[in-house]
Amino acid sequence: MSGLRKLLRPASVAVVGASADPAKTSGRPIAYLRKHGFSGRIYPVNPNAREIDGLACYPDVSSLPEAPDVAIVLLGAQRTQQAVRELAAIGTGAAIVLASGYSETGEAGARRQRELREAAAGMRILGPNTIGLVNLTDGITLSASGALEADHLVSGPVGLVSQSGGILGALLSRGAARGIGFSKLISTSNEVDLDLADFIDALADDPATRVIALYVESIRNPRAFRAAARKAARMGKPIVAFKVGRSESGARAAASHTGALAGTDRMYDALFDESGIVRAQTFSDLLDIPAALASARQLAGRRVAVLTSTGGAGTLVADALGLAGFELAAPDARTGQALRALQSGDLAALDRNPIDVTLAGLRPDLLRSAIRIVLESESYDALVVVVGSSGVAQPELMAGALKDSLGPGGKPLLAYISPHAPRAAEVLSRHGVPAFLAPESVGAALAAMWRVRQRDALGVAEAAPVVARVMARSDETGSLDEARAKALFARFGIAAVREIVVRSDAEAGEAARRLGPRVVLKLLSGAITHKSDVGGVAVNIACEEVGPRMRQMARDVQRHTGVAPASFLVQEMVSGAAEVILGVHKDPLGTAILLGMGGVVAELVRDTTLLLLPQDGAALTPEQVEAALRRLKTWPLLDGYRGRDRADVPALIEAVLAFARMAQALGDQLVEAEINPLFVRPLGQGVCAADGVAVLGGPPG
Amino acid sequence: MSGLRKLLRPASVAVVGASADPAKTSGRPIAYLRKHGFSGRIYPVNPNAREIDGLACYPDVSSLPEAPDVAIVLLGAQRTQQAVRELAAIGTGAAIVLASGYSETGEAGARRQRELREAAAGMRILGPNTIGLVNLTDGITLSASGALEADHLVSGPVGLVSQSGGILGALLSRGAARGIGFSKLISTSNEVDLDLADFIDALADDPATRVIALYVESIRNPRAFRAAARKAARMGKPIVAFKVGRSESGARAAASHTGALAGTDRMYDALFDESGIVRAQTFSDLLDIPAALASARQLAGRRVAVLTSTGGAGTLVADALGLAGFELAAPDARTGQALRALQSGDLAALDRNPIDVTLAGLRPDLLRSAIRIVLESESYDALVVVVGSSGVAQPELMAGALKDSLGPGGKPLLAYISPHAPRAAEVLSRHGVPAFLAPESVGAALAAMWRVRQRDALGVAEAAPVVARVMARSDETGSLDEARAKALFARFGIAAVREIVVRSDAEAGEAARRLGPRVVLKLLSGAITHKSDVGGVAVNIACEEVGPRMRQMARDVQRHTGVAPASFLVQEMVSGAAEVILGVHKDPLGTAILLGMGGVVAELVRDTTLLLLPQDGAALTPEQVEAALRRLKTWPLLDGYRGRDRADVPALIEAVLAFARMAQALGDQLVEAEINPLFVRPLGQGVCAADGVAVLGGPPG
Repeated sequence: MSGLRKLLRPASVAVVGASADPAKTSGRPIAYLRKHGFSGRIYPVNPNAREIDGLACYPDVSSLPEAPDVAIVLLGAQRTQQAVRELAAIGTGAAIVLASGYSETGEAGARRQRELREAAAGMRILGPNTIGLVNLTDGITLSASGALEADHLVSGPVGLVSQSGGILGALLSRGAARGIGFSKLISTSNEVDLDLADFIDALADDPATRVIALYVESIRNPRAFRAAARKAARMGKPIVAFKVGRSESGARAAASHTGALAGTDRMYDALFDESGIVRAQTFSDLLDIPAALASARQLAGRRVAVLTSTGGAGTLVADALGLAGFELAAPDARTGQALRALQSGDLAALDRNPIDVTLAGLRPDLLRSAIRIVLESESYDALVVVVGSSGVAQPELMAGALKDSLGPGGKPLLAYISPHAPRAAEVLSRHGVPAFLAPESVGAALAAMWRVRQRDALGVAEAAPVVARVMARSDETGSLDEARAKALFARFGIAAVREIVVRSDAEAGEAARRLGPRVVLKLLSGAITHKSDVGGVAVNIACEEVGPRMRQMARDVQRHTGVAPASFLVQEMVSGAAEVILGVHKDPLGTAILLGMGGVVAELVRDTTLLLLPQDGAALTPEQVEAALRRLKTWPLLDGYRGRDRADVPALIEAVLAFARMAQALGDQLVEAEINPLFVRPLGQGVCAADGVAVLGGPPG
Repeated sequence: MSGLRKLLRPASVAVVGASADPAKTSGRPIAYLRKHGFSGRIYPVNPNAREIDGLACYPDVSSLPEAPDVAIVLLGAQRTQQAVRELAAIGTGAAIVLASGYSETGEAGARRQRELREAAAGMRILGPNTIGLVNLTDGITLSASGALEADHLVSGPVGLVSQSGGILGALLSRGAARGIGFSKLISTSNEVDLDLADFIDALADDPATRVIALYVESIRNPRAFRAAARKAARMGKPIVAFKVGRSESGARAAASHTGALAGTDRMYDALFDESGIVRAQTFSDLLDIPAALASARQLAGRRVAVLTSTGGAGTLVADALGLAGFELAAPDARTGQALRALQSGDLAALDRNPIDVTLAGLRPDLLRSAIRIVLESESYDALVVVVGSSGVAQPELMAGALKDSLGPGGKPLLAYISPHAPRAAEVLSRHGVPAFLAPESVGAALAAMWRVRQRDALGVAEAAPVVARVMARSDETGSLDEARAKALFARFGIAAVREIVVRSDAEAGEAARRLGPRVVLKLLSGAITHKSDVGGVAVNIACEEVGPRMRQMARDVQRHTGVAPASFLVQEMVSGAAEVILGVHKDPLGTAILLGMGGVVAELVRDTTLLLLPQDGAALTPEQVEAALRRLKTWPLLDGYRGRDRADVPALIEAVLAFARMAQALGDQLVEAEINPLFVRPLGQGVCAADGVAVLGGPPG
């Protein structure tokens, strides 16, 4: 059995540095193991004790009666090294190292962490600086988290991997209070060995886990992470990730907390998107969304009914659902008739949406009937029941009515609890009806279900054809001038505007006559990337003006830069085209294509998106590119907005694919590349690069 | 004493339709009055009972021994009318009408509601369809809300006015669980008489209320609301409002729930902004923000320290604060030194931000010292303490340490509770340290404190000079053509581009020679507002081309509209200017000026803002206009972005003020007005309207 499998389900656990005082952190693991019913063998190791809590205590690792499946090491950083070396020597499956003082504390700590890895000599390590691992499926707690003080922990279908031990404890205790059960909870923290990807992979195989929740500070190994996420998708297990460090302050705090530099936050969006991972936008979403996804009910559409026993809260939930993109249509004739038949008197409002059953507070039969009618109605894809104070007073009764309405599979049925009523939420969740305390959470949870459903419908792009196994290095190096950059792009299939390099008045005039009637004149320089800032761009020049204009440009550029330019470009004018920006974004997480609309307004509103390149030379698909383009707020400009010509989107997609192929083929040699603008002409007329930058590193290989 | 004052603090309460069965809604009010310690006189009225809960019961209203200060009417809608008439006749101070079946149910209900108002004959009414009023300052519960089942209700400084009874109950119970105390809670619901404004006004005068929280479905009387909000601002009492109905589904549900049509949601932003009201973005913010503001501590800047006993959660809070616009700078040298002096060993990280006191879990003296150092430091304006499981285990100890650090006034001190620990949150809040369960709430709460602080620093614009008492009606009516619209704008001081109306080739050529070298040619029509959609706009025309172009335009327009146009406009070309849109937005909430950047990209990203006009003809101030312009994402385009010319913002502000004066002076006569685009030339060169629409109603007055 592998070290990782032993770690998740050990038959024997050594606790090195165990204390007999359960008030101390080092006294907790044994106390918790026994409290939560671990049935395997426990070996305390401590030279200063004979027994701990009735268990025989061993003076050192070498005295242990067997090589344990897992050792929890509770020593300080200095003594941990030796203990790990000894544990590895006797064949221990895996060690959990709680000590802090490693890479999170600076250079000396990072060195200590490298030494820890060497000491482990191949034995698997969880940590250091971890709070440990909790397997609730099997009642095995390998952790010092204070959250294990709770008397009863609910096991369930959510597997959590957290890069913070404190957050693991927070989520465990918050989940327990809400009736949200976990299968496994693992704090990977400094990840000297086992990391996020290892546990995503393991949870994908774990029959007790239906949804994987991640608390991410920094993905240290994006390659393995993406492979593991893909496996989870194949196994039908959605992943929900909360990533801290969206703000600069937060990123700095995370870097200092983990000792790892993260990629830019927007790259996480691109990575999660590519891997089919749902990103939790708020911390509470990290519990709420998995709770909804764990119900394993499918959301087939966006039409939601709200059934409420309190009018105001029904409105509140309807509003949150509307903001999350759901439709709250009135019931169809048949459903309306069935609902109306339930009501007596003229004051009820059952045949609307929200369906108001305020008057049915004490009539569970009415509630059951209304729920059944909605779940069977062709008008709705999901039902949200709002629980008011009448339902709260009898949570079991409400839960019973809801539970009886749940068939296997079927439409999602969620609850929103309006008053403070922790017990009602817990009871409902435990009965398989995810219950939420914030109206916004209901919207976020259903939106995530919809996202997962759409991804399932699309399927995860698997085994795309490999396009770039053969690297195609360029012979050029350094910062290419515009003409050479565009020549490079053309090699990969991206056409440029027609242009001629000129060095004299006469050449300029001749070029303008060939490309005119009116042309663009530009400085040509590999060193100056912001040409317009130094007076190096002039548009809409008549043929006869191009010579004098070139002389003026030479003077302007010399004034700004101190250097007299030798070469210029004369380019055709392109009109009636949309302008797009295409760039390569290199990041610790991977390489992405940046896509955006051109122009200064689009720049100001940051209407750009990142599209992560697949690994191992697999190709981007046209569908991925089109989906990315449609994410832009300015997408309508390409799509015939307000009577404009439809832009040649198929040609644009081809150009993006070509640009991506270039980035993959050049690999590390490509330091920087951007086309700005790429003109997208009307449908059927293609695209052309009007300006571009490329920087190539090192000598050609 | 006025009816409203009696309602808030009655000495005697009649309960009409009281039941002896406390399980029934009609049995609750008396039970709650006694349970929560009402010391005044209670008169049950019910012809079928002799006594209720030991109180003498009266057969009808006319048998009551005195005119009560307040009557709670628990009858159905039909019998309520008569009871209200009788209560008014004997001189009752105010009646609380719980019955539903009024304007929220359609036309018949609306008629019933009008009859209710007549029956009241001037007696004040709260409701109908209300859950009542709770005065926790004085222990007087005039309500049937199930939230009053709670044994102990915490009084405190937050006054709540809710247009939903269910939401009142939800907030009361959620607040109690969090240690957030209320002064008064009022559900106004259908507002046949007393409305939001009446209670904002009353709470502004209430010494027990420090912050006013509003749950808004629809503001029915914006004039009174704005006056009351202004009074609250004068009294130094911030208002926090959650407005439901941001989505279409939500707005529809709210309209059906309240029977009132709301204004567009963006107008609420404008109204709240103008009135200095903080808008709660999530439902939980409606408790969290008032809790923070009630602490009455002042946030003097944006530099926040985070002190944490659990590393991961410290990062989480730092990130949320960063996203909310706060700075988490490292401590200055002196503060860092003082923090370092507290630590023993080399593993603590006290001289950073977040300040990590993980190792101090059981050392409250260390915690106290660190808090004191931060609160005294010149580096920070506020402190957030993150409470982990060690703090949670001893909430009183943690609360004690925090409380001792609170001087009177001083810097804000907030807490974030990481694990599930409702008791810790409650204890801290009760001790005057607002405690939050979500990291995003900490950010929202501090952001609101900062907003209130900035508003206080600016002062609420009071008694602006009245500019438009004298209405300046126009003699024109109907949809004005472009030339007449711009003439109207010019009357109020907004210059237009130079232009000449032409009807023939010869006139067009002559006009072009005067305005050229190149000009704009446009169809002139009051009926056709989207000229470019029918081929009625051509730009950059040379003088010699203007005649033929005009004939072609005539043909194009005739083809599109079936009508041969008779008049055209020749306009000067304006270049190098930014383009702005200026419009009048009329809404049930008031009239606003719409401001936005011109161009199709700005249109797609909806980068516009609404600026509500003051009431009673008071003038907008230049500061208000500038603040609105700076809210635009594209503001940098006016402000010298990337080496552009700075636009003539002073002239733009003057033009907006003129446009606003026009809207106020024309009043109801102005149906629609828009300038699109308004060219804003470089600084010192002014603005000019390039196109415009105006629609004037009715015959001139």
